[in-house]
Amino acid sequence: MKATVYYGPRDMRIEQVPDPIIHKPTDVIARITHACICGSDLWPYRGIDQPKPGTRMGHEWMGIVEEVGAEVQTLKKGDRVIAPFLISDGVCAFCQEGLHSSCVHVGVWGRAVDGGQGEAVRVPYADGTLVALPQAIAGDKQLLKAVLPLTDVMATGHHAAFTAKVGKGSVAAVIGDGAVGLCAVLAAKRLGAERIFIIGHQEQRLKLAQTFGATDIILARGEQAEQEILEQTHGGADAVLECVGTLDSINMALHITRPGKTASFVGVAHIDHIPDLGNRFLRNVTVTGGVAPARAYLPELLQDVLHGVLDPSPVLDMTVDLDGVPAGYEAMDKRTALKVMVQLQ
Amino acid sequence: MKATVYYGPRDMRIEQVPDPIIHKPTDVIARITHACICGSDLWPYRGIDQPKPGTRMGHEWMGIVEEVGAEVQTLKKGDRVIAPFLISDGVCAFCQEGLHSSCVHVGVWGRAVDGGQGEAVRVPYADGTLVALPQAIAGDKQLLKAVLPLTDVMATGHHAAFTAKVGKGSVAAVIGDGAVGLCAVLAAKRLGAERIFIIGHQEQRLKLAQTFGATDIILARGEQAEQEILEQTHGGADAVLECVGTLDSINMALHITRPGKTASFVGVAHIDHIPDLGNRFLRNVTVTGGVAPARAYLPELLQDVLHGVLDPSPVLDMTVDLDGVPAGYEAMDKRTALKVMVQLQ
Repeated sequence: MKATVYYGPRDMRIEQVPDPIIHKPTDVIARITHACICGSDLWPYRGIDQPKPGTRMGHEWMGIVEEVGAEVQTLKKGDRVIAPFLISDGVCAFCQEGLHSSCVHVGVWGRAVDGGQGEAVRVPYADGTLVALPQAIAGDKQLLKAVLPLTDVMATGHHAAFTAKVGKGSVAAVIGDGAVGLCAVLAAKRLGAERIFIIGHQEQRLKLAQTFGATDIILARGEQAEQEILEQTHGGADAVLECVGTLDSINMALHITRPGKTASFVGVAHIDHIPDLGNRFLRNVTVTGGVAPARAYLPELLQDVLHGVLDPSPVLDMTVDLDGVPAGYEAMDKRTALKVMVQLQ
Repeated sequence: MKATVYYGPRDMRIEQVPDPIIHKPTDVIARITHACICGSDLWPYRGIDQPKPGTRMGHEWMGIVEEVGAEVQTLKKGDRVIAPFLISDGVCAFCQEGLHSSCVHVGVWGRAVDGGQGEAVRVPYADGTLVALPQAIAGDKQLLKAVLPLTDVMATGHHAAFTAKVGKGSVAAVIGDGAVGLCAVLAAKRLGAERIFIIGHQEQRLKLAQTFGATDIILARGEQAEQEILEQTHGGADAVLECVGTLDSINMALHITRPGKTASFVGVAHIDHIPDLGNRFLRNVTVTGGVAPARAYLPELLQDVLHGVLDPSPVLDMTVDLDGVPAGYEAMDKRTALKVMVQLQ
């Protein structure tokens, strides 16, 4: 089969790789129908992370079950499935507690197993990892596109809003206008936020944020942005959803959170500490968030997408086929695309 | 009147100072009956903090109202009162939200106003700051001693347990066997914790912790202590109550918190960042806590003390009169006393 393989910064290749086969009786093999390129895939692309040459890429995908291991109980050949961005067994204590991202068998697509940006994938712990989609969805291209972001960015945006305790009447502030930030706006709206600030700099994306429910756009940067939000909220937002992961954005999140309230961090950071502890302590700001347990949220979010009350599909503003994946990386790197969908079938 | 005045490291003096007078119509003047020496008072004593020579000391006190400003509505001459360790107006948005430590008029005893380790004190925002005690308590020395820790250490221990979401059946871990750590054990027990670990090194204090409800004593230090707790809890405590504030104890708190659960920090830290962000992020550990809004908790905790179901008085293991305050600092510095009560009347 063909798959996307990393060779070095700005060197993603579509290559022939071995077809996946069942290793364990809890595996299934799935043929991939849709995948995405993630903002975090840009790190190796840009050379910030440098995985081994030969590493397979992609952790957001949907597909059709093609082969089923002997111990798999909930899936059969032909089932349409969606995968969260992490593998999880579904039965360990952490999965039972809803924190599938801390599963004792947690795994990452593209490392020990095939990546999502390819024609097929071996799925470990298939009963735990995958969620079946209704068969009727097969003919509805638009609905499939709305489901696809639940693999990662929509689940991550929801994690930010949920862990920051967004509820009816909340004043939320979303830092970042990437796909996760935009999904965090959707999630905050869905959980009842009354006012949703978004801090970003890309005009098109901020317009999309408004259609998703953002009520206040903050174009200023740094301290000026902080001042604007502190003034307009009379002391800070109830829930700050940090969807970038830089030192500046982390600092901003801590500063614009109302005393006694919560900042949730879902932007994967490349720094190793939270600064300004004294300020957090004096103001009783809670710091939460992390790697989203997407598998835990999938059933709930899927129902809303299937019922037409949640639609993150506009974040997917460019579509490529598998051979177009390298061009998709380039478009996201140059910000001519927000997020790329890979359509295989 | 006489009061405790700081002149430099290990130089606390009992001196004549001006009698307090009403400055604003919202003030009262209170004669102090009981005060404490706090662990945080040891910082200037040890030279870690160096306030201006002449600074008045003490932020934990109870007393009797002697003079009442014209606009004070809830207090009258002769009322017995307890003060939390911070001044707050009781009416601003933050006080209304229960976060009196972020009051827009927040103040600290001993800075702009008299300290608690003296004969009398001017109380700003008296209606907001003070809580009246029942008159019947006057003759009950033991009950007064049980109420006194609500000024700070018991409220702070409760803040740790409450913000770490200790509830029925929780597995809690308390780091530190000082007065706050011991009160955190009491608080965790009171909120329903099923198992309470305490990490400390002072045999007498750990015995007291057991009488307060600690079920598991961890004498090991550093990584060995972490390993013991991780093993015994099968992955970490649900609620970690950090009552020390050093880099090592903050690190330990983050490491022994179960993924998806909460570490609350109430030990005032002399470091400026939270380390090891990546680990927190991967494990979805929530970081919370800070300066306790003692005023918010006082009515609830007071009821339990008055009803005999909460008794933190054993943390007060040495009593001095006002002239004995310097000896009290020395005893706490040398750890021959856990916490000193100053009995004025």
